[in-house]
Amino acid sequence: MAKDKKMVESITSMEEDFAQWYTDVVRKAELCDYASVKGCMVIKPAGYALWENIQKELDRRFKETGVENVYMPLFIPESLLEKEKDHVEGFAPEVAWVTHGGLEPLAERLCVRPTSETLFCDFYSKDVQSHRDLPKLYNQWCSVVRWEKTTRPFLRSREFLWQEGHTAHATAEEAQERTIMMLNVYADFCEEFLAIPVIKGQKTEKEKFAGAEATYTIESLMHDGKALQSGTSHNFGDGFAKAFGIQYTARDNTLQYVHQTSWGMTTRMIGAIIMVHGDDSGLVLPPLVAPTQVMVVPIRQDAEGVLDQAVELMNTLKAAGIRAKIDDTDKSPGWKFAEQEMRGIPIRVEIGPKDLEAGQCVLVRRDTREKQTVTFTELADTCGALLTTIQKDMYDRARKHRDEHIWDARDYAEFCDIADNKPGFIRAMWCGEEACENKIKEETTVTSRCMPFEQERLSETCVCCGKPAKKLVYWGKAY
Amino acid sequence: MAKDKKMVESITSMEEDFAQWYTDVVRKAELCDYASVKGCMVIKPAGYALWENIQKELDRRFKETGVENVYMPLFIPESLLEKEKDHVEGFAPEVAWVTHGGLEPLAERLCVRPTSETLFCDFYSKDVQSHRDLPKLYNQWCSVVRWEKTTRPFLRSREFLWQEGHTAHATAEEAQERTIMMLNVYADFCEEFLAIPVIKGQKTEKEKFAGAEATYTIESLMHDGKALQSGTSHNFGDGFAKAFGIQYTARDNTLQYVHQTSWGMTTRMIGAIIMVHGDDSGLVLPPLVAPTQVMVVPIRQDAEGVLDQAVELMNTLKAAGIRAKIDDTDKSPGWKFAEQEMRGIPIRVEIGPKDLEAGQCVLVRRDTREKQTVTFTELADTCGALLTTIQKDMYDRARKHRDEHIWDARDYAEFCDIADNKPGFIRAMWCGEEACENKIKEETTVTSRCMPFEQERLSETCVCCGKPAKKLVYWGKAY
Repeated sequence: MAKDKKMVESITSMEEDFAQWYTDVVRKAELCDYASVKGCMVIKPAGYALWENIQKELDRRFKETGVENVYMPLFIPESLLEKEKDHVEGFAPEVAWVTHGGLEPLAERLCVRPTSETLFCDFYSKDVQSHRDLPKLYNQWCSVVRWEKTTRPFLRSREFLWQEGHTAHATAEEAQERTIMMLNVYADFCEEFLAIPVIKGQKTEKEKFAGAEATYTIESLMHDGKALQSGTSHNFGDGFAKAFGIQYTARDNTLQYVHQTSWGMTTRMIGAIIMVHGDDSGLVLPPLVAPTQVMVVPIRQDAEGVLDQAVELMNTLKAAGIRAKIDDTDKSPGWKFAEQEMRGIPIRVEIGPKDLEAGQCVLVRRDTREKQTVTFTELADTCGALLTTIQKDMYDRARKHRDEHIWDARDYAEFCDIADNKPGFIRAMWCGEEACENKIKEETTVTSRCMPFEQERLSETCVCCGKPAKKLVYWGKAY
Repeated sequence: MAKDKKMVESITSMEEDFAQWYTDVVRKAELCDYASVKGCMVIKPAGYALWENIQKELDRRFKETGVENVYMPLFIPESLLEKEKDHVEGFAPEVAWVTHGGLEPLAERLCVRPTSETLFCDFYSKDVQSHRDLPKLYNQWCSVVRWEKTTRPFLRSREFLWQEGHTAHATAEEAQERTIMMLNVYADFCEEFLAIPVIKGQKTEKEKFAGAEATYTIESLMHDGKALQSGTSHNFGDGFAKAFGIQYTARDNTLQYVHQTSWGMTTRMIGAIIMVHGDDSGLVLPPLVAPTQVMVVPIRQDAEGVLDQAVELMNTLKAAGIRAKIDDTDKSPGWKFAEQEMRGIPIRVEIGPKDLEAGQCVLVRRDTREKQTVTFTELADTCGALLTTIQKDMYDRARKHRDEHIWDARDYAEFCDIADNKPGFIRAMWCGEEACENKIKEETTVTSRCMPFEQERLSETCVCCGKPAKKLVYWGKAY
């Protein structure tokens, strides 16, 4: 049974080598595989099912705010990409270029979309005429391509899946309101659905999106103390509108430029789930996003009645709206347990001949490994409640871990010491100059993650240069 | 109100110019728009909502048969595309080539996937080892690119959205069973969900997919009498498995090649919905696929109580699981009716001051324009039943139209006469030689659509050459 063997060979421990542990989990939980094109992924059923659940929930939350889905082309003509100066400077070095269609060379090169601001702007410039056409609240689910040099599954790949929202508004206020609204949708989604606590804030000038007036971000902390940018929301002001000529006739009959936003979340959130919740036995999935929530494992399934009862338990769970499966393969219970753990399925139900006699089964939590015995009639209710508990406990645990890995630095020596010795976020004051960000990055590999919405004054001077401090910043080593 | 004006200007009538009518409906029902890249589409909210409903229903039907979703890369290295000889010959002339990544030329050209057989085969060659790994029942939802010379919205575009299923099986029998199973899923989906009757059959050698042993198709008939290939399912035998070395260890420990299938359905089905059901007032949507099923239109909404009651009616409908909306804009009732008709919303509910007094409202069917008056308390039940009736009636009407446009030809003169004068399918016997298909195509622009599963013998000789007939074939002019 070559396949079982692969599964149960122990994976590298997190403490020993976090990067290798991550790769092992990605591979052994069968989330994705490398493709024949360098830096591209094959997302396998277990990984894609996570993405489907993320999509479904995010899409529902978007639509509740009035967003509609559309689809823009995969290709951007070079001349269109070049219309907004900052934007093209940011993206041109990392796009893939199509030069031939069929057997003919193209008159103009097309880039494979790295993001679709230019396409939406081109469309809005024709589609928006009157204030009655506003706001436009469009989103698309698609793949994008960025020719990255170093890649890692889910975290950084040359092609990835995402959603990109692009809105156009009559006023600057409305655009700003939408920018923050969508950041909040992301934050709530991460905390409530993925059980990942986040810090909300604004990116510095240096770290903001190419072409944006302001970029807002949610930042989460992985188990190894590194930060992951988990969702961004940009306010473009009227910069793109001016570059693309997107104007509308206002109520007072004057011609005005629209104000725009964009916001995106990607398949890298699968990486976040792995790195926030996983352990040395593999993946640990928050119940809400788990494609399978309960795995029923018959013990001695050849014994009379065991398999039938196991199937009945699964059906009872399904009838209660729980995503349950049964592992009735001919593998040993030990293999089945290891597989269920590797795949991060939140609850395992064990049922053997003795349990059958007693009218009960054993529940095992994936996150804590706690066991409890319940009667068949209690099973569905207990599982339902337990899934809610697990979801909450996983958030609390991740939150505790995150909070225990936030360090305050009041001077540069302290900053460097933390950067060297204490994984996590560093909170420190900053003067607002890019020079300090550059110096810090060069000397410590730490970057500014965000200026949090909840500002405090830890000290009066910049942690780097000693000049008067303007902002509290979260710093961190990032994926 | 420039926007209203656009909507209500009459569209070209179907009888006058069907192609122009189609383009008018696509544009005025706001389904899609042209993009800055020639031959590519912007799918607008009304069009994309149709695709979302198609996706949801098809995906549910796929999963019921055990299919799992995955995601393969967008790019195919040239050497990979070339592995299966017939396949590359079929597709190489119409693919888009990426030659540069970032600022560097690539060592090997990458084509943008026109279809993903080669990627799935490359993956299976590594992932399949034992009979325990089979069957693989994978599907993906994505966009594909084919560099077509002439394009039409939804029907033929350089980029389109689709799903492509790719399965691998231990035996030839299993592969054949899956090929037909998925064709039946497509046929049932079209008939039950889109209210489009189809003819199931096998493609001739000339018309089959590049690299397939056999291609099966469902063919539907548009209102103008032209055929539309609406879904195909291919049996590859072990041809790709041999080209890519996809082998598994069987139970008896011998090394065997897998047998494969693929099957796809695309956004062209939106075109089919338009051309099967539409009329001179615009789109007519089958209730099951309609994003909005009932539009409530208040008449004199400024009159006391009207708007409140209209909102309440909408809420009652929603509570009953019906997708209802209200048009409470300041447009005139006439504009609102025209818009609802253009967009093909199955039922309109009209409510004015007099209705309010009488405790009733007026239902208008989009398909037949029949009106009926119902009390507020009857509304939800009546609408629910009416949606079911409309769905059935639309299928029956499309079926009747299709059946009235099937003509039997027993000799070549009759065949040519029908081709010239009677739009629709032509049923005629065929000797099995490609030469006859070529001659017919050249002389009449008619192509073989399929050899239907339900075979009959209309005559003993080929309609073209007079040699002994082998198969009954459906012929037609096709999109």
